[in-house]
Amino acid sequence: MAAAIRYSRRNLGLTGTNPSVGTLIVREEKDGPRIVGRGVTHVGGRPHAEPQALDEAGELARGATAYVTLEPCAHHGRTPPCAETLISSGIKRVVGAASDPDPRVSGRGYAMLREAGIEVVENVLAEEAADQLRGYLNRAAKKRPEVILKLALSADGKIGIEGEGQVPITGAIARRQVHRLRAESDAILIGIGTALADDPELTCRLEGLEARSPTRIVLDRNMRLPLDSRLVKSARQTALLLTSAADCEMARQPFADLGVGFIAVDVEGREIAIPELLEDLAERGISTLIVEGGAFTAEAFLAEHVVDRLALYVGPGQIGARGIPAPVTPQDVPHGMVLKREARYGPDRYFEYVREG
Amino acid sequence: MAAAIRYSRRNLGLTGTNPSVGTLIVREEKDGPRIVGRGVTHVGGRPHAEPQALDEAGELARGATAYVTLEPCAHHGRTPPCAETLISSGIKRVVGAASDPDPRVSGRGYAMLREAGIEVVENVLAEEAADQLRGYLNRAAKKRPEVILKLALSADGKIGIEGEGQVPITGAIARRQVHRLRAESDAILIGIGTALADDPELTCRLEGLEARSPTRIVLDRNMRLPLDSRLVKSARQTALLLTSAADCEMARQPFADLGVGFIAVDVEGREIAIPELLEDLAERGISTLIVEGGAFTAEAFLAEHVVDRLALYVGPGQIGARGIPAPVTPQDVPHGMVLKREARYGPDRYFEYVREG
Repeated sequence: MAAAIRYSRRNLGLTGTNPSVGTLIVREEKDGPRIVGRGVTHVGGRPHAEPQALDEAGELARGATAYVTLEPCAHHGRTPPCAETLISSGIKRVVGAASDPDPRVSGRGYAMLREAGIEVVENVLAEEAADQLRGYLNRAAKKRPEVILKLALSADGKIGIEGEGQVPITGAIARRQVHRLRAESDAILIGIGTALADDPELTCRLEGLEARSPTRIVLDRNMRLPLDSRLVKSARQTALLLTSAADCEMARQPFADLGVGFIAVDVEGREIAIPELLEDLAERGISTLIVEGGAFTAEAFLAEHVVDRLALYVGPGQIGARGIPAPVTPQDVPHGMVLKREARYGPDRYFEYVREG
Repeated sequence: MAAAIRYSRRNLGLTGTNPSVGTLIVREEKDGPRIVGRGVTHVGGRPHAEPQALDEAGELARGATAYVTLEPCAHHGRTPPCAETLISSGIKRVVGAASDPDPRVSGRGYAMLREAGIEVVENVLAEEAADQLRGYLNRAAKKRPEVILKLALSADGKIGIEGEGQVPITGAIARRQVHRLRAESDAILIGIGTALADDPELTCRLEGLEARSPTRIVLDRNMRLPLDSRLVKSARQTALLLTSAADCEMARQPFADLGVGFIAVDVEGREIAIPELLEDLAERGISTLIVEGGAFTAEAFLAEHVVDRLALYVGPGQIGARGIPAPVTPQDVPHGMVLKREARYGPDRYFEYVREG
């Protein structure tokens, strides 16, 4: 199952509104288990993992075990549900990790398999699989994307210097990890303050993964983003959405002409209503959203209690008294968040916290 | 309520993943009822209709009646739910049409109002309101968009001439009606055969409504659409999605460079799996889909029993024996579809059928 979960990661962020699921078909042979078929949800979300793995296995699937990272789908369309495909292939045993919260599947996929006389083992490494599938599971259960707040902090807990915009805090290895996180996510969001100060592009710049850049979103109620910013200039290559409150059609036109899209938002007081925005992003099929700052935007998401995961990169340097204090630090995370992962990326340290329960 | 329903039509096709809802605030005055506030879901889906109408009414809302075409929302985000906004405005009576199938709202919006002592009258012109909201209601209930099959037929039941592509069947008034239908819909779909034969653009060309063109989708599994077709050439202005089966990344690149998007499909036999495609379109937030042909594509949708509405435009001319027979005619509609509307557009006649129940 661990191998199936690793394999499922391959198309993370590439499968549209469907989850990136992994399937391995394994035969017990004299000299040990042998993988005879592998499948991962195809780019765009179809075909699903199971038929691809069974296709590769062919006749070798008969009597074999299928490892699936998510409960196989059970509802009929034009193609048969994956549970049915597993049955007709002659698979003897199905080992499943996460269960599917979609009411058309939940429990029914496993039930179909059992009714056909297949041995089913559920919940194997379920937590690890759910961790990979968290965006999909989150969207199905909470009707909003999983929100990952990413921050780079100095050793003294600062995220930048007031008025100087971006300052290098972390090294090359940590930056590559951030780009990998981008590649695996559906969307990335910043506030207009950060967009103006840093003029970022927010794409994935890992070699070979450029096409995996997430949809970029700027909280920019008053259309202050410059038309010659890197974000706008790359809107034809990678989707860029600006939030927009009512009644500014004239202001929108020059952006629209450059390929920028819009998402309507509610405004409460002078601030964009974040829960409503998240609801609308989920309705558009976005399952994972990285929030990359700055402090104002990070605080707004924290205040709404919608941050599911904290990705904190801590560099070795000190910024000092002129620095902008981070809204969270490894010493001070919001109540209910627990340390899930810790790593060292060259000189930098990485701390990942998730919301418990 | 009839006026509120007519008013709600204003932003049909423009409110993203949210439904286009209308709200009127009416005061009984000495010389009869007076409308003191009007609201329709804003372009993009936010703000909702109710706060806009109450904003216009201001203090005049106190003691007045609110007419709403859909049950007011009941779940909290950053902005208060519309039910709460109605309560705090001092509205005395709420007259509602359709109920909301979203489990976070269903029945709870009306219940909140009643608990606050507001008189609630439900289901007034509910069917008429549901007809305007059918895309949203359909997507919430069936997890797929409403499918409208649009066909133009000659008097002898033909839809074109084999090998000659598009032939004029209906007149200018009927064509304007078709463009209006496009403006009110989220997406429009044709098969590659029609795309090759007719080189259509599928945009809305009514003056002032050009920006309301729906997302265009071509069933084109093998990427046969020419790069210099009108569809591809206008992809930067109006979204164009091609269906694509697995493993043709090389073929996709030149289209992607011109701004064309893709949607992954399952293939069963040699045909694109339509129920799965509809499911994925709904997940992307598409609530209404017009299928505009040709015969092959129309028949594929009819065979899957996913057509919710037939829009048949019948011209006065005969095409004769060389004509391509229509897959449906007013004399021969699929079982379970009933005539909902009939009209005359200049020399042409219009018949609209809906799936019963």
